[in-house]
Amino acid sequence: MKPLEWLGDRIRIIDQTKLPAAEVYLELHDYREVAEAIRRLSIRGAPLIGVAAAYGFALGALSIHAGSREEFLGKLDTVNETLAGSRPTAVNLFWALERMNRKAREPGDITDVKGSLVGEARRIEAENEEADRALGEYGAEFVRKGTTILTHCNAGSLATGGNGTALGVIKTARRQGKGIEVYATETRPLLQGARLTAWELTREDIPVTLITDSMAGSVMKRGLIDCVIVGADRIAANGDVANKIGTYSLAVLAAENAIPFFVAAPTSTIDLSTPSGDSIPIEERDPGEVTHLHGKRIAPEGVKAANPAFDVTPHCYVSRIITERGAVREPYIETLRELVQSQ
Amino acid sequence: MKPLEWLGDRIRIIDQTKLPAAEVYLELHDYREVAEAIRRLSIRGAPLIGVAAAYGFALGALSIHAGSREEFLGKLDTVNETLAGSRPTAVNLFWALERMNRKAREPGDITDVKGSLVGEARRIEAENEEADRALGEYGAEFVRKGTTILTHCNAGSLATGGNGTALGVIKTARRQGKGIEVYATETRPLLQGARLTAWELTREDIPVTLITDSMAGSVMKRGLIDCVIVGADRIAANGDVANKIGTYSLAVLAAENAIPFFVAAPTSTIDLSTPSGDSIPIEERDPGEVTHLHGKRIAPEGVKAANPAFDVTPHCYVSRIITERGAVREPYIETLRELVQSQ
Repeated sequence: MKPLEWLGDRIRIIDQTKLPAAEVYLELHDYREVAEAIRRLSIRGAPLIGVAAAYGFALGALSIHAGSREEFLGKLDTVNETLAGSRPTAVNLFWALERMNRKAREPGDITDVKGSLVGEARRIEAENEEADRALGEYGAEFVRKGTTILTHCNAGSLATGGNGTALGVIKTARRQGKGIEVYATETRPLLQGARLTAWELTREDIPVTLITDSMAGSVMKRGLIDCVIVGADRIAANGDVANKIGTYSLAVLAAENAIPFFVAAPTSTIDLSTPSGDSIPIEERDPGEVTHLHGKRIAPEGVKAANPAFDVTPHCYVSRIITERGAVREPYIETLRELVQSQ
Repeated sequence: MKPLEWLGDRIRIIDQTKLPAAEVYLELHDYREVAEAIRRLSIRGAPLIGVAAAYGFALGALSIHAGSREEFLGKLDTVNETLAGSRPTAVNLFWALERMNRKAREPGDITDVKGSLVGEARRIEAENEEADRALGEYGAEFVRKGTTILTHCNAGSLATGGNGTALGVIKTARRQGKGIEVYATETRPLLQGARLTAWELTREDIPVTLITDSMAGSVMKRGLIDCVIVGADRIAANGDVANKIGTYSLAVLAAENAIPFFVAAPTSTIDLSTPSGDSIPIEERDPGEVTHLHGKRIAPEGVKAANPAFDVTPHCYVSRIITERGAVREPYIETLRELVQSQ
């Protein structure tokens, strides 16, 4: 199962909003369709959003009819803005678009540039897969035999197109014969844990127990969890981590129970231009995602609801940040910079 | 709206599993129906479970045909066991049954005893209402003007038959003109916060914002919450509090953010015979409550789920325990005993 596939003039995606009840595939021919698929979470997960944005950019470029390079780049700006406006928090989106924009400005005629943009998107996808593999190996070193791991949301194949970040570590440790078990939080409001992580792990025969988000503290306190591993949507220069709403609570509960808390993410998630978590824009989504489930109202008419999609975990709660170039720890303000600049 | 009403030879209840979509009332004529209504959560909330069990006991007594006092008491034991077996955690159930059993053993012929059992159940109900009122007054002293309060599950009228415990404090402070706002956690798996607390507060015109359980840490960290108030299902002699799953997480997050954490409960919830939270039995409910919602599957087929209905919050996280006889703090091992014995 690949959540996203390039088919030469279009991309084929699995509609993640429909899982696990149905495996529905969609073909997107236009960059606007890609932006819309990201916005409504048919495509989700910070690394996969980056890959999708890159292909969306390439699709946009392929469709441009322009008499000059200036006209071409002008039209490409519209493509770029549409994709950049799809979601605000995951930095991989902006990172991928920046790479594509740089590539678009390299010398060459329009036809050459179109070709090299497709090539760049493919490279981003391939690097992403390779990053998952390397990250999984680095992360597995922190996982002992017989470990029970708690994870949140979905940081798996569905979130990256590769092995996954947090789930990539879990799968690698499992493949090393370490006898891993997983507790997956359901991750309200959109239930990515219940729908996607439980589905992905079940398909890989990794034992998983589903819990509501409210049970995470209790299972930690009862000694059932050896470590927590989550993904990230943006990591600030000081190591503060924006990730799915609820991550901060898990980090505090892990610290209180002396349980290591790991963040697994490719270096494309690290944003050195964001000094701390305070500067990370947090997407506020439709309150209807909280008051309704499967289109059915679960709260009384007229009640107000909040719906921040992410929260920020201060770096002091993070035991290690695991990337494809190795795992680092405090002082993140130094170790993250070294890591990013080590390319 | 009364969640439970005695009608002389039966009780009328609102079926809380159907709220807020529908206000369905049920009439229960038999103690077995009462036990079943408690088990399936049509009647819920520790204090209301106590009241319902008392009336269930009285209904059971009224239906007994016995030639002797011994035969009567023997048959009453079956009534008692059926009600006692309905749910394990809320101690108010056992507290109410103990009072009814004591009353049943007082001198008098069977007809007199039946009458006095009905009287005792009515007394338990009336005392409960009065406890809410007094507890609300004591609790409101801790609530300043313009306070935003986070609460979990439903500790309101629907949980007690009176004003409510946690919500009783909120309503009292509101009535004193303190301009209270509330954040209500939805309280998965059964959504008592979204379904019941949001409904109850909306009916009383108290501003309420619904959040998922996973958002509680984030709203605390962002400085939006001034204090947390929850109810309790059982308070051990040392002050450890069993309450709806997720309460422990809220207590840890409140402590981490220097937010006072209050537990509001009548003294019938304090169980001096339980030394600490470790001895409180935690009900494990059907995993289907986690994997399904409104009868619809939200997780993949075959995935395992845990479903503990309660967790235990160690007393060190509890700023005050607020009862109808006043509010106490550490050392709970002494202050709770004094409180219970002060009757």
